Amino acid sequence: MFEPDQLPHILPEYYTRARDMMSLQNRAYFLAGAGDEATLLANETAFSCARIIPRPLRETGGGSTQISLLGQSHATPFMVAPFAYHRLLDPLGETATARGAQAQSIKTVVSAQSSVDLAQIRSAAASCDWFQLYWMGSRERTLELAEIALAAGYTVLVLTIDAPVQGVRDREIEAGFQLPPDVRAVNLSAFPATRFTPLIEGQSFVFDHIAHVLPNWRDVDWLMQSVAAPVLLKGILHPDDAARAASVGAAGVIVSNHGGRVLDRAPATLEMLLEVIKRVGSEYPVLMDGGIRRGVDIFIALALGAKAVLIGRPVVCGLCVAGELGVSHVLRLLRDELEIAMLLSGCASINDIHADMVHLKL
Amino acid sequence: MFEPDQLPHILPEYYTRARDMMSLQNRAYFLAGAGDEATLLANETAFSCARIIPRPLRETGGGSTQISLLGQSHATPFMVAPFAYHRLLDPLGETATARGAQAQSIKTVVSAQSSVDLAQIRSAAASCDWFQLYWMGSRERTLELAEIALAAGYTVLVLTIDAPVQGVRDREIEAGFQLPPDVRAVNLSAFPATRFTPLIEGQSFVFDHIAHVLPNWRDVDWLMQSVAAPVLLKGILHPDDAARAASVGAAGVIVSNHGGRVLDRAPATLEMLLEVIKRVGSEYPVLMDGGIRRGVDIFIALALGAKAVLIGRPVVCGLCVAGELGVSHVLRLLRDELEIAMLLSGCASINDIHADMVHLKL
Amino acid sequence: MFEPDQLPHILPEYYTRARDMMSLQNRAYFLAGAGDEATLLANETAFSCARIIPRPLRETGGGSTQISLLGQSHATPFMVAPFAYHRLLDPLGETATARGAQAQSIKTVVSAQSSVDLAQIRSAAASCDWFQLYWMGSRERTLELAEIALAAGYTVLVLTIDAPVQGVRDREIEAGFQLPPDVRAVNLSAFPATRFTPLIEGQSFVFDHIAHVLPNWRDVDWLMQSVAAPVLLKGILHPDDAARAASVGAAGVIVSNHGGRVLDRAPATLEMLLEVIKRVGSEYPVLMDGGIRRGVDIFIALALGAKAVLIGRPVVCGLCVAGELGVSHVLRLLRDELEIAMLLSGCASINDIHADMVHLKL
Amino acid sequence: MFEPDQLPHILPEYYTRARDMMSLQNRAYFLAGAGDEATLLANETAFSCARIIPRPLRETGGGSTQISLLGQSHATPFMVAPFAYHRLLDPLGETATARGAQAQSIKTVVSAQSSVDLAQIRSAAASCDWFQLYWMGSRERTLELAEIALAAGYTVLVLTIDAPVQGVRDREIEAGFQLPPDVRAVNLSAFPATRFTPLIEGQSFVFDHIAHVLPNWRDVDWLMQSVAAPVLLKGILHPDDAARAASVGAAGVIVSNHGGRVLDRAPATLEMLLEVIKRVGSEYPVLMDGGIRRGVDIFIALALGAKAVLIGRPVVCGLCVAGELGVSHVLRLLRDELEIAMLLSGCASINDIHADMVHLKL
Ligand SMILES: Cc1cc2nc3c(=O)[nH]c(=O)nc-3n(C[C@H](O)[C@H](O)[C@H](O)COP(=O)(O)O)c2cc1C
Ligand SMILES: Cc1cc2nc3c(=O)[nH]c(=O)nc-3n(C[C@H](O)[C@H](O)[C@H](O)COP(=O)(O)O)c2cc1C
Ligand SMILES: Cc1cc2nc3c(=O)[nH]c(=O)nc-3n(C[C@H](O)[C@H](O)[C@H](O)COP(=O)(O)O)c2cc1C
Ligand SMILES: Cc1cc2nc3c(=O)[nH]c(=O)nc-3n(C[C@H](O)[C@H](O)[C@H](O)COP(=O)(O)O)c2cc1C
Repeated sequence: MFEPDQLPHILPEYYTRARDMMSLQNRAYFLAGAGDEATLLANETAFSCARIIPRPLRETGGGSTQISLLGQSHATPFMVAPFAYHRLLDPLGETATARGAQAQSIKTVVSAQSSVDLAQIRSAAASCDWFQLYWMGSRERTLELAEIALAAGYTVLVLTIDAPVQGVRDREIEAGFQLPPDVRAVNLSAFPATRFTPLIEGQSFVFDHIAHVLPNWRDVDWLMQSVAAPVLLKGILHPDDAARAASVGAAGVIVSNHGGRVLDRAPATLEMLLEVIKRVGSEYPVLMDGGIRRGVDIFIALALGAKAVLIGRPVVCGLCVAGELGVSHVLRLLRDELEIAMLLSGCASINDIHADMVHLKL
Repeated sequence: MFEPDQLPHILPEYYTRARDMMSLQNRAYFLAGAGDEATLLANETAFSCARIIPRPLRETGGGSTQISLLGQSHATPFMVAPFAYHRLLDPLGETATARGAQAQSIKTVVSAQSSVDLAQIRSAAASCDWFQLYWMGSRERTLELAEIALAAGYTVLVLTIDAPVQGVRDREIEAGFQLPPDVRAVNLSAFPATRFTPLIEGQSFVFDHIAHVLPNWRDVDWLMQSVAAPVLLKGILHPDDAARAASVGAAGVIVSNHGGRVLDRAPATLEMLLEVIKRVGSEYPVLMDGGIRRGVDIFIALALGAKAVLIGRPVVCGLCVAGELGVSHVLRLLRDELEIAMLLSGCASINDIHADMVHLKL
Repeated sequence: MFEPDQLPHILPEYYTRARDMMSLQNRAYFLAGAGDEATLLANETAFSCARIIPRPLRETGGGSTQISLLGQSHATPFMVAPFAYHRLLDPLGETATARGAQAQSIKTVVSAQSSVDLAQIRSAAASCDWFQLYWMGSRERTLELAEIALAAGYTVLVLTIDAPVQGVRDREIEAGFQLPPDVRAVNLSAFPATRFTPLIEGQSFVFDHIAHVLPNWRDVDWLMQSVAAPVLLKGILHPDDAARAASVGAAGVIVSNHGGRVLDRAPATLEMLLEVIKRVGSEYPVLMDGGIRRGVDIFIALALGAKAVLIGRPVVCGLCVAGELGVSHVLRLLRDELEIAMLLSGCASINDIHADMVHLKL
Repeated sequence: MFEPDQLPHILPEYYTRARDMMSLQNRAYFLAGAGDEATLLANETAFSCARIIPRPLRETGGGSTQISLLGQSHATPFMVAPFAYHRLLDPLGETATARGAQAQSIKTVVSAQSSVDLAQIRSAAASCDWFQLYWMGSRERTLELAEIALAAGYTVLVLTIDAPVQGVRDREIEAGFQLPPDVRAVNLSAFPATRFTPLIEGQSFVFDHIAHVLPNWRDVDWLMQSVAAPVLLKGILHPDDAARAASVGAAGVIVSNHGGRVLDRAPATLEMLLEVIKRVGSEYPVLMDGGIRRGVDIFIALALGAKAVLIGRPVVCGLCVAGELGVSHVLRLLRDELEIAMLLSGCASINDIHADMVHLKL
């Protein structure tokens, strides 16, 4: 077990220590991005280009980071992003993550590809009631997975639509990344991979196999009607798609490019957040993720219109460095930094954070 | 012979491995650019500044990368760019390249300076029916070369006009690059170099020798009328020149700066592509090359209006690393990446790729 | 003691030598910035983006750098910025600094956190009559400190409002910075730290402790009325806050982000100076600091509207490298450079320095 | 003596080899810039941001680089910039430079601070008939120097006005640069340095000594009327100063910042060239220098309106590496590159080089 005083004291040390501790394979899987990592870098750079104008001498006594979202109360405007295979980083896997987050009153979005059974995670951490779905190749199978999650007590669903193929994962290929035998997407064992008929001359794996098992907007519409829970769409970048999500009944959208892991050259999420908000207005629940590494980044995303954000790599690093405790500590540091940014900019509540407090030159 | 599992698995490894394998001289000849390489770099940078906005949930089943160009059907919207002296990289030279490309149903544009006889290349790879001409110092000689190519079965000609002089090839001079005795521009042996009268005091080699054997627009016009095949002009950057090419009957233009090998400080081809399309409209066949290193780059060029693109250095690297197999593999990887980009942006056909899917900030 | 010829001869050598001489802890405390140091860097970068257009052939004979500010005459338009704990750098601490500055007829703004008694500094250097206040947790305590300073002979007060919390001082945490036992904020010994009641579940240290002992605009208004001396507000970035400062009777404002030590991602002070001047006009006394490393930087700040500037890190480095003599020399070098910039741009007096002499592209 | 085949073959090798061959002192004197070298770098960067659009298929046969300037015919649109103390680099000093340039039919502007007698240089190289003056502290002394030059056969004078003080020559101070005993400004021996009365308390060397011996616009006006030869003003950056130069009868102006050696943070000369031309129109003779390292740079300066350019550092490097031969070779390489750029952009004469051939994004 970790002694608290062996933990990193600052966020960047979590990031560098995790990078050093990981095997080449894990580094490629968890930290790298697709292709030349232009999008991964762009996500982070967008935040570091933003400037927050401090406003001293405003009253912030008794303030708080609390928000209300889809009828739920959240202690902070950020959650743990769904990511796969936590057991590659810690033997307790998603259980460790969910507990570490819960210790900070923060929710974890559990990935469809979690390496611990979804019901087990849920019972280990009562606050953990968001579940992320992938399309399972057909309407029925997708609905089936959703219902398993709801039956286990999850109350909010997130359908991730931006990763229908792997993307150009050059770093993983280079490192020869492969799942070890004891780590699997346990929730998906009951859903064997689609078997395709062999391709004929001139056909393409992408267009003639994969594309046939992907969802379209009508499928998503159907799912929204069929599931007895709010569903958010994750992986929206185009404003028109955000509008369409709203119109098919999505409970909200998550502006995301999957942390730069799928289409390298996709734009930075912060950049598209602005466009999306312009299109769907400020009432509709728009969340975002990608590139958040500091508390000030959360402040910036909120100022530019996000209702909440998801945290991916920082939690990856916390889990890698010190398991449950590491997750908890990373989230605490992010929250502390956010509170300081709020104090310095004179915001006593998340609602006080306005667009005119941030200058963004991209 | 190469075992497939010794091949690089990803595109960037072809590039780095080729760089490492090449002699200093070949590196200078094949990979370097003119002058300070500002244009070579600008070509690549322009692509990496572009952003593609993914569009999930659109139907792409049964899609394909096929295009129709000048009445021909092409399996992909890219071809192998004409480059000289393949035998510097592989003993089979252009034959290896053309076969490797054909294995992917991709056409090779054979360079006037090929190191293998043009008829021999053509008979080795039936798909290989584009031939690139240089101006041979006079109308008659140029027409003669064109007719040799047509007689050998080539059906489309490309007249390259952007390299009337060598350019400032500092890297080659530094490396002392020279053709070895067994590698020559075999198709040009029958066309001995022009003999100039000695320069007199105050005359200049550039203006008083070279300039006198260069073509002008009237010569090009004449050639277009005299050759019984479609001719494209390669090496156009200025929009007015593209318009003029159309007006003298060119079958199309290739926006190119010769891969940054001639005029250092020429603008990036992607930048000029936009201007050219604005000028000649979207019907006229405008192709482009320069700086394409990834499948997403092809997507970007097409989105911004190119009907097809040519691939230079990546094929150079494929040929260097693993001959015919390497060419084939590099082209396959580019195609896979293009298909993934199309799937992620919801494009089932090349015609679906539109300008509004790409943001370009230069 | 230092022999003059062992001193650095140029400003950058003071900066590099100080960096090398300091302990890791002092380097983190004195030279680093908050968070990722984006603001620290932005302060400096803003100056290096500005361009001064020389104007030869204008008369500058008999010129001078003198200004008049709040009724005082200053030999130069710059002062020493208030910074804490000079005794970490030199045994004589603030006494050395104030004397070194006075040797150049330059005033030192004494920090509330000085490590030498404020009266002692004042009596060591007669020119040293500006004192910087922090809010002491309540109106009464703050007024008390102000009155101690006035009683000691200080005539101008500076209330620093931009550092109500420490900020994210990662570099200091990393280095394990702590005050040694013999260095303390001696002027504040009489003001014991506020004792807070323990936080209850769900409360936050930032919002439920710190925020309750911070001043608001009404407190500042009250202080202005209660203190029998001109008070400037230091740490203003937002134009509206500058306007408000003027309206509550501040004698002037100092556009500052505390040298990038508090809110990382705050904008560069030079950038905000422009906005502030646009808002409050050119009559109201607006000073600035942050990122000034060269005489030309002072010129630039004055051209863009600052009435005077404060110098932080350069003086830190002078004091570190050679105590009183080092402070004096650094200030002399800055003044020499300023005079040269004035001569070259044809300005015989500070009033001749106009905005159209500087181009700023940010 | 140098064997031609030991010479560098390309321009950049002259620059790197010179840097390596020079003593630390000479490097600081000849190659470094003032302050942090921001202006030195900006000069070069401005050129590398410009893009030239090639225009193939235009007639350039019989073209030439010749220009006519102030009634003289010049074989090329560039001259050697005046720089001091050539004997630090080669024992024959300015004689070597002037002869090497003349071998390429290129004129040298002889510096007032030449280390060889001005008459001797002139008799060694008949083409060398431009002389650069500094203000000698008074009208009479300046006129006297001008008349010595005219008497020796110089026909065009250049009055340099941008270096009334040394500037912040940190690199030279650092390197301890000093003239060796055998190298002096021989033409100025007859003009002993002004003796100043001692400064009194509160006076400044810059404003109370230097500024009193500098010229103003009336002095320059007087000189123009008093000298029986065309005089250009060198060191103009502000458009208003260019206009004023024209109005006091200057034969032309040279947009220059003294190669970044005086006011660090002065703008790039290429940037100001545009402004100056906008102000004084395209008829008035505007020359420029600073940052030209390649033939394409000359093309760019001419396209943006310069009638001719001066070459500083490249000639410094040629002289350092191989004396007279090196100067000649560097100038030949620049001319070759210029001719190639002209051919590729379809310009048969300097007059054909137009602004619309160059894109400049600064
Ligand atoms: C290793 C890894 C695995 C991921 N797996 C999933 C997943 O299973 N489902 C999903 O919706 N998103 C997944 N994501 C994307 C994250 O939910 C999130 O969008 C991304 O990490 C945010 O960017 P950040 O890492 O820069 O914070 C994964 C991300 C990473 C880094
Ligand atoms: C080594 C080399 C030789 C080339 N030779 C020719 C040639 O003979 N004819 C021609 O039209 N283009 C030639 N090119 C230019 C290419 O056709 C093409 O325009 C360029 O390589 C595209 O840029 P890329 O290499 O960045 O893809 C050559 C390019 C290279 C790299
Ligand atoms: C080590 C250090 C301690 C400081 N302490 C104080 C302080 O006690 N009070 C205050 O108002 N400002 C303080 N400052 C901020 C300075 O007054 C000033 O705003 C800043 O140093 C200006 O930026 P510069 O260092 O880039 O010149 C401190 C700055 C430094 C570097
Ligand atoms: C070492 C050196 C000495 C110089 N001396 C003089 C001089 O005596 N008179 C003058 O007018 N300019 C002088 N200059 C400036 C040059 O004439 C010219 O403006 C400058 O070198 C152009 O920039 P470049 O070196 O980037 O080409 C000098 C420049 C250098 C590098």
